[in-house]
Amino acid sequence: MQTDKQQRIFVTGGAGFVGSNLVDRLIEKHQVVVYDNFSNSDGSNLESVKLHQNFSLIEGNILDPPKLQEAMQDCDLVVHLAANADVRFGTLNPGKDLHNNTTGTFNVLEAMRANNIKRIAFASTGSVYGDAKIIPTPEDHPFPIQTSLYGASKAAGEGLIQAYCAGYGFQAWIFRFVSMLGERYSHGHVLDFCRSLNKNPHELRVLGDGRQKKSYIYVQDSINAIFCAIDKADEQINIFNIGTNEYCEVFDSIAWITEGLKVNPKLLTTGGDRGWVGDSPFIFLDTSKIQALGWQPQYSIKEAILKTVNYLQTHDRQLSTL
Amino acid sequence: MQTDKQQRIFVTGGAGFVGSNLVDRLIEKHQVVVYDNFSNSDGSNLESVKLHQNFSLIEGNILDPPKLQEAMQDCDLVVHLAANADVRFGTLNPGKDLHNNTTGTFNVLEAMRANNIKRIAFASTGSVYGDAKIIPTPEDHPFPIQTSLYGASKAAGEGLIQAYCAGYGFQAWIFRFVSMLGERYSHGHVLDFCRSLNKNPHELRVLGDGRQKKSYIYVQDSINAIFCAIDKADEQINIFNIGTNEYCEVFDSIAWITEGLKVNPKLLTTGGDRGWVGDSPFIFLDTSKIQALGWQPQYSIKEAILKTVNYLQTHDRQLSTL
Repeated sequence: MQTDKQQRIFVTGGAGFVGSNLVDRLIEKHQVVVYDNFSNSDGSNLESVKLHQNFSLIEGNILDPPKLQEAMQDCDLVVHLAANADVRFGTLNPGKDLHNNTTGTFNVLEAMRANNIKRIAFASTGSVYGDAKIIPTPEDHPFPIQTSLYGASKAAGEGLIQAYCAGYGFQAWIFRFVSMLGERYSHGHVLDFCRSLNKNPHELRVLGDGRQKKSYIYVQDSINAIFCAIDKADEQINIFNIGTNEYCEVFDSIAWITEGLKVNPKLLTTGGDRGWVGDSPFIFLDTSKIQALGWQPQYSIKEAILKTVNYLQTHDRQLSTL
Repeated sequence: MQTDKQQRIFVTGGAGFVGSNLVDRLIEKHQVVVYDNFSNSDGSNLESVKLHQNFSLIEGNILDPPKLQEAMQDCDLVVHLAANADVRFGTLNPGKDLHNNTTGTFNVLEAMRANNIKRIAFASTGSVYGDAKIIPTPEDHPFPIQTSLYGASKAAGEGLIQAYCAGYGFQAWIFRFVSMLGERYSHGHVLDFCRSLNKNPHELRVLGDGRQKKSYIYVQDSINAIFCAIDKADEQINIFNIGTNEYCEVFDSIAWITEGLKVNPKLLTTGGDRGWVGDSPFIFLDTSKIQALGWQPQYSIKEAILKTVNYLQTHDRQLSTL
């Protein structure tokens, strides 16, 4: 991370899927403060680090500004991962994305300002492009039209961070990730399919027509990309797409999941080119910008899915208790 | 407005500079409900309509969701103008833009949803492009980097509206305006310069180097553009830049203001290519999209400035009491 000097790194959402994997890798070199409200996790992801001398945990919500501000004291870098991370259920509770992802990001920025911390890494999403007109989609894609409350809330978070860079001299690394897979994966289609197939291995209900084209990336590859960008990109505002060099159809994904689970279900598609309101029929990001810094994904989508299925079989309560 | 049939139109910020001019023109054909908290105006802008049978006024804040929802009952179209409209002071109170312009827009959308109203016109801003890379700037400019909290908050409002179109079947007209001038103008550089020259006609302090290139438009031309777009553009999401076919330097603007005031001050520039944090050194929008619908501005920037100076001389308390 930029220098070999030990830093004190504040990780919001550090107990979650991505956060805890990041913390595992930061902890040997850096002091790490995890700030998490355990809304998406139960603390088990932190078993591997909880006794480490470099580790501290503060249970708190990013929607609690005084607590957030106090917790952030003396940190050098904020990695802001805490979010409502599920794109699918936005329309059921439209305030959730706004509060957690936009207002929450504002609170993080204000806490940084109060503590004179100026460097932030932010987990944004490929969903900010809405239904991209250019595929693979570059970072300078035309001004997007949002198609989901999740994408809109993350795009708004990006905008706030950028305005803090202009207004208060912050420096930012913004990552537009495709969906991540791997150990500690906790929500999304692979989990849904595994649980469904666990209940009934003979049939699988597929939202949409199954031909939606999606990209996924292994979580460790994403973390490598975060490290690479913070090490090597030193503009005031650094924005990177993070994804693999391939995409797959939902049908491909199902084939790999069923291969991993050794089942052979009949597929029942609900039809239409979108699985849900705001679902994008084709997500595939142009990652040449981060690749120009020397980063490359090490795992294919198939490998990432098989690793995830393997993890879920041994760790997801609904699956592993059988 | 789309049909000759009378509609019930809800105008947030309807007592303000732009809103009250819009209401004056809507009132003969339509029922108009103005919702305003009088934070930017004192009610005098509504003198011309307050006794009209088609007019009703509800004093309220867009940050008061229950009141907003109740006030909006039975309306057919929402014109959402209420905002923190001053781009300059964002960094002094960074929550103000977020609350008024992003959360406020969310509240408007939620009130619409509760009342089953699906059509919204929204006053956005050319500031959403940040420091535009392409000038004149088209609506599909590359994914912008925000340079002000104001621009970020309006871009976030746009994103929310777009997500409501995708998620709830709303239809939207989004207008990215350059700065407006004309009768009832209430804040901005023309007022600041007029007041300053009123105090001391011999000297004028100019933020920046005076060479910032800006676009302005006469408020009635903007209202014509709103009517034209709602009449003729029927996509689900309709986004239009609104501005004149020209730009001027701050020095040009000062020359016209001093011409209008008949003064000849010495100019003292503070230097630098920006007047303030987040100031854009060059704003000039490509308006070919709205022009293709038949709209054209009727007034030049010079004419708009002279009309504004004339209005301020007779209506601004600080100027007219001399």
